Amino acid sequence: MNYRMIGRISAKILAVEAVFMIPALLICVGYHEFAAALAFAKAMLCIALASAVLYFVGRKSYRGFYAREGLICVGLIWIIMSLLGCLPFYFSGEIPHFIDAFFEIVSGFTTTGASILPEVEKLSHGILYWRSFSHWIGGMGVLVFLLAISGRGEQGGYTLHLLRAESPGPDVGKMLPRMKQTAITLYVIYIVLTVLNTVFLLVGGMPLFDSVCTAFGTAGTGGFGVKNDSIAGYSPYLQNVCTVFMLLFGVNFNCYYLLLIGNLRSVLKDEEVRLYFGIVFGSIALIAWNIRHMYATIEETLRHAAFQVATIITTTGYATTDFDLWPSFSKAILMVLMAVGACAGSTGGGIKCARVLLLFKSLRRNIHKVLDPRKVQVVRINNRPVSEVVLENTNAYLAAYASILVFSFLVLSTDGFTTTTNFTAVLSCFNNIGPGLEAVGPTCNYASFSVLSKLVLIMDMLAGRLEIFPILVLFSRSTWRKK
Amino acid sequence: MNYRMIGRISAKILAVEAVFMIPALLICVGYHEFAAALAFAKAMLCIALASAVLYFVGRKSYRGFYAREGLICVGLIWIIMSLLGCLPFYFSGEIPHFIDAFFEIVSGFTTTGASILPEVEKLSHGILYWRSFSHWIGGMGVLVFLLAISGRGEQGGYTLHLLRAESPGPDVGKMLPRMKQTAITLYVIYIVLTVLNTVFLLVGGMPLFDSVCTAFGTAGTGGFGVKNDSIAGYSPYLQNVCTVFMLLFGVNFNCYYLLLIGNLRSVLKDEEVRLYFGIVFGSIALIAWNIRHMYATIEETLRHAAFQVATIITTTGYATTDFDLWPSFSKAILMVLMAVGACAGSTGGGIKCARVLLLFKSLRRNIHKVLDPRKVQVVRINNRPVSEVVLENTNAYLAAYASILVFSFLVLSTDGFTTTTNFTAVLSCFNNIGPGLEAVGPTCNYASFSVLSKLVLIMDMLAGRLEIFPILVLFSRSTWRKK
Repeated sequence: MNYRMIGRISAKILAVEAVFMIPALLICVGYHEFAAALAFAKAMLCIALASAVLYFVGRKSYRGFYAREGLICVGLIWIIMSLLGCLPFYFSGEIPHFIDAFFEIVSGFTTTGASILPEVEKLSHGILYWRSFSHWIGGMGVLVFLLAISGRGEQGGYTLHLLRAESPGPDVGKMLPRMKQTAITLYVIYIVLTVLNTVFLLVGGMPLFDSVCTAFGTAGTGGFGVKNDSIAGYSPYLQNVCTVFMLLFGVNFNCYYLLLIGNLRSVLKDEEVRLYFGIVFGSIALIAWNIRHMYATIEETLRHAAFQVATIITTTGYATTDFDLWPSFSKAILMVLMAVGACAGSTGGGIKCARVLLLFKSLRRNIHKVLDPRKVQVVRINNRPVSEVVLENTNAYLAAYASILVFSFLVLSTDGFTTTTNFTAVLSCFNNIGPGLEAVGPTCNYASFSVLSKLVLIMDMLAGRLEIFPILVLFSRSTWRKK
Repeated sequence: MNYRMIGRISAKILAVEAVFMIPALLICVGYHEFAAALAFAKAMLCIALASAVLYFVGRKSYRGFYAREGLICVGLIWIIMSLLGCLPFYFSGEIPHFIDAFFEIVSGFTTTGASILPEVEKLSHGILYWRSFSHWIGGMGVLVFLLAISGRGEQGGYTLHLLRAESPGPDVGKMLPRMKQTAITLYVIYIVLTVLNTVFLLVGGMPLFDSVCTAFGTAGTGGFGVKNDSIAGYSPYLQNVCTVFMLLFGVNFNCYYLLLIGNLRSVLKDEEVRLYFGIVFGSIALIAWNIRHMYATIEETLRHAAFQVATIITTTGYATTDFDLWPSFSKAILMVLMAVGACAGSTGGGIKCARVLLLFKSLRRNIHKVLDPRKVQVVRINNRPVSEVVLENTNAYLAAYASILVFSFLVLSTDGFTTTTNFTAVLSCFNNIGPGLEAVGPTCNYASFSVLSKLVLIMDMLAGRLEIFPILVLFSRSTWRKK
């Protein structure tokens, strides 16, 4: 194991994290919230110390940096970053228990948006800002950010392993031949879309602070809001802006790059994007029909249906209405959307439309193979053959996904909540959504779970955001076995 | 497609079915239930007619009989056999709606045990017998029976394709080099165990009729009982006999063959059997600890825990207590056991322990591959390497399993029951168990679902019993496409 390099990279990431806290600290000062400001200052000091220690970890060695190191590095960094990132919550006393503060920041970084707070409006502005900003950081990934600002940009090498371990989707789409260029392009698109989102919210009359925080939550498909009622209190226009931008952030960022270079045709013909929007519009239609008697006008019905579908499939987790009160069919659709998730290469979580497509196509191939064993069958996406390694990994992903779901569900059941609560809590955290049903519905929170359950949900959120393997490798015996 | 051969085989199966109705008819006469006797007579006439028609289907051709034909043949036969097998229920008026009668017999043949009847004690004896006997027929498979009595016994050929399509598990364990011998051996073991079970029940004072019917339900891991309260009203001894025999019928029948030829060592070292009993005893311990405050004595606690674990993991579905009243943790364990199921090559349903083992082993291999991409990794079960085709099929099975679960859950949700009811109804029918939770709990039934939901559940039961692929192939467009 190349401990030195893992230490160095972690040290840099922590430095970035400390820098990222500066705006929050300034906001605290601006709003005269000095207790919170002090908490941020203390947290930054701790992070600086940890960074310094990590920088000198490990002896110099000429060992390489392979997939194993990439996975472990990403897994470790996300855990350390969260352990230190929750310090402002804890030091300020606004979240008194450390496990709750840890839960909250993991929920932030992993863009889950599940909260242990019954109400958020009494939090200080700096803390609220840090909460929302954590979504923005986690959405695109902090290692991708590091690559964008400091990566040496060589083809392959350690950057590829890091990018592969942190980026969502069955296969890393390299937009550009150089990793550094890809990372920069991703962040430019990300920043432009976030700014656009903020502007559209400002135009609708949302205050600047709310707009920025809401845009962060939307961009990262996170879902932490600054109001107790999430987005329900804002005007229909603002709700629709959120719906549109949530859906946009759920699209594979490759598509925006293709649009930038004028290749509209490829975007329109992209099978994953078609599936994604097909599921979105299909679900909106079915739900709107199912809840038509619950709202006064067609506009309101469609608005709520569209918002809730967008918030769940993109795994954001904002809410404009309590969908736990909807009929079973609508709730069932939302539960399925929870697992499906957004496109690969977006900021959204879940299994990802690309994987769903791969699973169906490889299932179809399997049926064809049974019918005609002699014919060679190749799975194609967008007319390009998919390698057997990707198919195998997708199947392994599904098996790991199901195992973790079952294990977490069993642990949560010891707390004595209902089956639906436990199941949707796991589904929601694992797919980085936020709200579930019943006791973890849109109007409730995760405070009442036991410490053990919270720890399991924290691991689920991390496993979900990092697509399982970094966390599995981190906890696998064979990773740490001496050779 | 070799229609002629499919027609011929179907005709023979229907002849077997008509013969299998004779005992039920005699029992009707013996108990002076002449209305039911007439219903059986009419049904047998219909079956004879259908059999005659099927015998002359298709032109003579020299086309072969391959995996495709095997799958379609098995899928079709099970549907036709059920459509005709439910006629006694319908003709006798004891189940007035045809869809309910169809549901009941599919539940019987697939050894599910889910019922649309609120009470069974008012049914006539002949009907009760046919209900229970359908479990026994379905448990080992009617095509296996046909092979045992008439198969030409050649190695490979059409018999292998039929056996493969009807037998549960990721790979057909050929006990003996000749298919006919294997089929006969399976049925001999099956009959001996059923007789033993009946004798143990008779010794405990259970009436002969009850003993035979209960043994049929146990042997097929079905779960239709002859009492409204299932097994709850019988003595603790009788309940324990059921527990033991349910567990025995959940073991791979290969093991009994190995025991017969004196190879105890292989049985004790079999990884699937170890996993199966590991899960069983682990679950009993956890549940007993979880429900320890609900029953008066340790004996009673352990008895109920063991019975319920046995009935669910073997997918039988008898009940001695209403486990819907148990704490969430116990219910969660039972839900997981529902999906896991019994051993491959047993009469039980579910995903099967062998597949769970394969999924975990191939997942572990995938992690090792990530850690060390250059090393060739082979998955081994019982120290024998597992072929890549079997691994691929297991993964495809899991993908198909998840897809069908999601699709069925969505359809059932339109009926407006709770999420837990819908989810466990699908889980229970698809895994051929019987009872679920809440509105389909051990004290309830499936009568209140809509016709559409019942049809979906019927397809789920068939897909579950036949391990998905025969049903998928039957409904696949490419099966019927002209070349």
